[in-house]
Amino acid sequence: MTSVIDIAKNASFAATQALQLSTEIKNNALLKIADLLEQNKDKIVKANIIDLENAKDLSMSMVNRLKLDDNKIRDMIQGVRDISLLPDPINKEIWSKDIAENMTLKKVSCPIGVIGVIFEARPDVISQISSLAIKSSNAVILKGGSEAVNTNKIIFELINEALSSVDGFPQNMINLIFTRDDVKQLLDADSYVNLIIPRGSNALVKYIKSNTKIPVLGHADGICHIYIDEFADINKVLDICIDAKCQYPSACNAVETILINEKVALSFMPQLMFKFIENGVEVIGDENILKIIPNVKLATDDDWKTEYGDKIVSIKVVKNIDEAINHINKYGSGHTDCIITENNENSDKFMMFVDSSGVYKNASTRFADGFRYGFGAEVGISTNKTHARGPVGLEGLTIYKYKLFGNGDIVADFASGKRQFIKS
Amino acid sequence: MTSVIDIAKNASFAATQALQLSTEIKNNALLKIADLLEQNKDKIVKANIIDLENAKDLSMSMVNRLKLDDNKIRDMIQGVRDISLLPDPINKEIWSKDIAENMTLKKVSCPIGVIGVIFEARPDVISQISSLAIKSSNAVILKGGSEAVNTNKIIFELINEALSSVDGFPQNMINLIFTRDDVKQLLDADSYVNLIIPRGSNALVKYIKSNTKIPVLGHADGICHIYIDEFADINKVLDICIDAKCQYPSACNAVETILINEKVALSFMPQLMFKFIENGVEVIGDENILKIIPNVKLATDDDWKTEYGDKIVSIKVVKNIDEAINHINKYGSGHTDCIITENNENSDKFMMFVDSSGVYKNASTRFADGFRYGFGAEVGISTNKTHARGPVGLEGLTIYKYKLFGNGDIVADFASGKRQFIKS
Repeated sequence: MTSVIDIAKNASFAATQALQLSTEIKNNALLKIADLLEQNKDKIVKANIIDLENAKDLSMSMVNRLKLDDNKIRDMIQGVRDISLLPDPINKEIWSKDIAENMTLKKVSCPIGVIGVIFEARPDVISQISSLAIKSSNAVILKGGSEAVNTNKIIFELINEALSSVDGFPQNMINLIFTRDDVKQLLDADSYVNLIIPRGSNALVKYIKSNTKIPVLGHADGICHIYIDEFADINKVLDICIDAKCQYPSACNAVETILINEKVALSFMPQLMFKFIENGVEVIGDENILKIIPNVKLATDDDWKTEYGDKIVSIKVVKNIDEAINHINKYGSGHTDCIITENNENSDKFMMFVDSSGVYKNASTRFADGFRYGFGAEVGISTNKTHARGPVGLEGLTIYKYKLFGNGDIVADFASGKRQFIKS
Repeated sequence: MTSVIDIAKNASFAATQALQLSTEIKNNALLKIADLLEQNKDKIVKANIIDLENAKDLSMSMVNRLKLDDNKIRDMIQGVRDISLLPDPINKEIWSKDIAENMTLKKVSCPIGVIGVIFEARPDVISQISSLAIKSSNAVILKGGSEAVNTNKIIFELINEALSSVDGFPQNMINLIFTRDDVKQLLDADSYVNLIIPRGSNALVKYIKSNTKIPVLGHADGICHIYIDEFADINKVLDICIDAKCQYPSACNAVETILINEKVALSFMPQLMFKFIENGVEVIGDENILKIIPNVKLATDDDWKTEYGDKIVSIKVVKNIDEAINHINKYGSGHTDCIITENNENSDKFMMFVDSSGVYKNASTRFADGFRYGFGAEVGISTNKTHARGPVGLEGLTIYKYKLFGNGDIVADFASGKRQFIKS
């Protein structure tokens, strides 16, 4: 058994080999993976059945995420093929300029290197992340949920079998590790691993952020807000609030807190409350909401910091847009926040001052997603303030290098005034 | 005395206020700072003299960095005015597209938030970093070298005096902290501080990277290489090697190790050696260099990992370009590395496979600098593989947010197939 540090070292070497990968080789690799997964559907289903049999103690939602039925396998394979169709994000000239006579500087995109991805039950993530890594010429070290170990293993083996048949594709680009102790070692391998992406529970993300020197890309919480402005259209309010809470309540981009302007609270709340009851949503309100709808539960300060991940929503009355903005910047997680208004001045203000990765006007927070943004695929959603923010697609797996083309140029000539830089 | 955590909290609030700053207000603030510094030159010189008197135990090079003479103060003030002339990096629309009918998504640049900058003796860094922060609408918390405490304080006070006279400029945007214990508290303030930039010794940078959850931007080592290819022009070799080592030996972009192709080692080494001796450079060579130039010191494995920061250079004979690339990727720090060659195939290969922020063909490594790259100013040089790499200008102090403009749009309509996303 190779140690995690050796896996990381080998992945790091593979990453330098991958710097030369042509678009053609990468796309060829992706199509071979898709074909091999397709030819071995039965093996994947068989492995998944073993995992499902071992998963009797898991919650229904966990079992649903773990289960790979025919439709999910078909989507998974299509996902790999789709990534082969995306533009290659690597070796793109971002800009080029002459910094002095006969000296050209080019900024060129390149891969990050080795990326560690830690995720929970869903086994279809393996092929998705592997495909994104291949397309962006990065090596990856994957750690999946232990519940999915058999499914993960067979998908991983099929991917590497496909890659080994591709001429010129480096070894050790896609790696799998298994235990919690492996993760600990991975987090310590900062000499070889350039980025960690955790996908999973708040607890997982927080643990990882606290235990590594490696940059971490992701989000711990998804506390999304909707602010109902005094100039809101009630039909949009009802549609958006129900969609943002009910369309997929456990998603990180589902709304958790609704802030409603006091000027419309009395007229809008009964209709909104009716819609929430109709959709089985429990409402928790501040004291002003209780004055309008007496039978809801009173919110505590903790409610404003809580990601329910369920059909529960907290609602608070605010004096004005400023109070809404301050509340969101104080309690929010910088994920996605929406204003419902017909007033452009207010929406401009909200979208300027709310310091979140996504600021929306009259649209459900559930649109925060790489596919919906048109990125073709996503590695996750980031609430970071550096590197990549919001839904992260292939571009978030790249960095750049500067290439300077000279002819024997020396700095001393510029220091002495013999030569001058071109002012840009 | 305000605690560091309160300073960070206030800076974080200031950063949200700064989201609205117009280019005009920011440039106005910069010009006011420049004027006030100019009017108070005498005060700055006086404070600097106190620091110099207290600095009797410091090395000559430290004293030189600490000393602010008339020329340096003039350059410092000009630097502030120059930043007012740079384009505003904030609120730039990076792209805009319709993701569905009547739904427009915009990617817009915005500030990072609160940036902590920790630097050593040079007091002119305060006005430089403050100006970059103002121009990019970020709040900063600065910690300067304790040797420069009086100079730092007066410059800091003048900056804030100028800012307080600018209508609409938020309070607490530029902050100064003083002690090592303050730095410790700053590194713990990850709820409020979004980025740490250390500028200084390797030891400082390593300490910071090991002691914070906040993303760190910078470089610990500057182990730059020059590879002399078999197709190198000897005149370029001599010019570039001398410039890269001698023009400013303590700079992070000075060359530390030269790799020479065995095919040209015998013919080139005597001339190169002569030049190095002429320029007072001590040469440390591997065993093959010793066969050509017997009286140099034999290199150990440690030499390949050493940033001398002085007129010392290590030289090693390599079989071919592949050995050079592998050596650089193994021992280098990912800063700046150069190939000297007249062969385009070799330079392309070198620039593709050397995994550094700067890869040069026939140009001195000393060109790695934000001013020389035409960025107008720099906060430092990064060897990170995420966020910003190489010389970091204003753009490195920005991130982006997504603004989605809808009309009551809900995800359920797309999930049901009633509406479709536009394929990009």
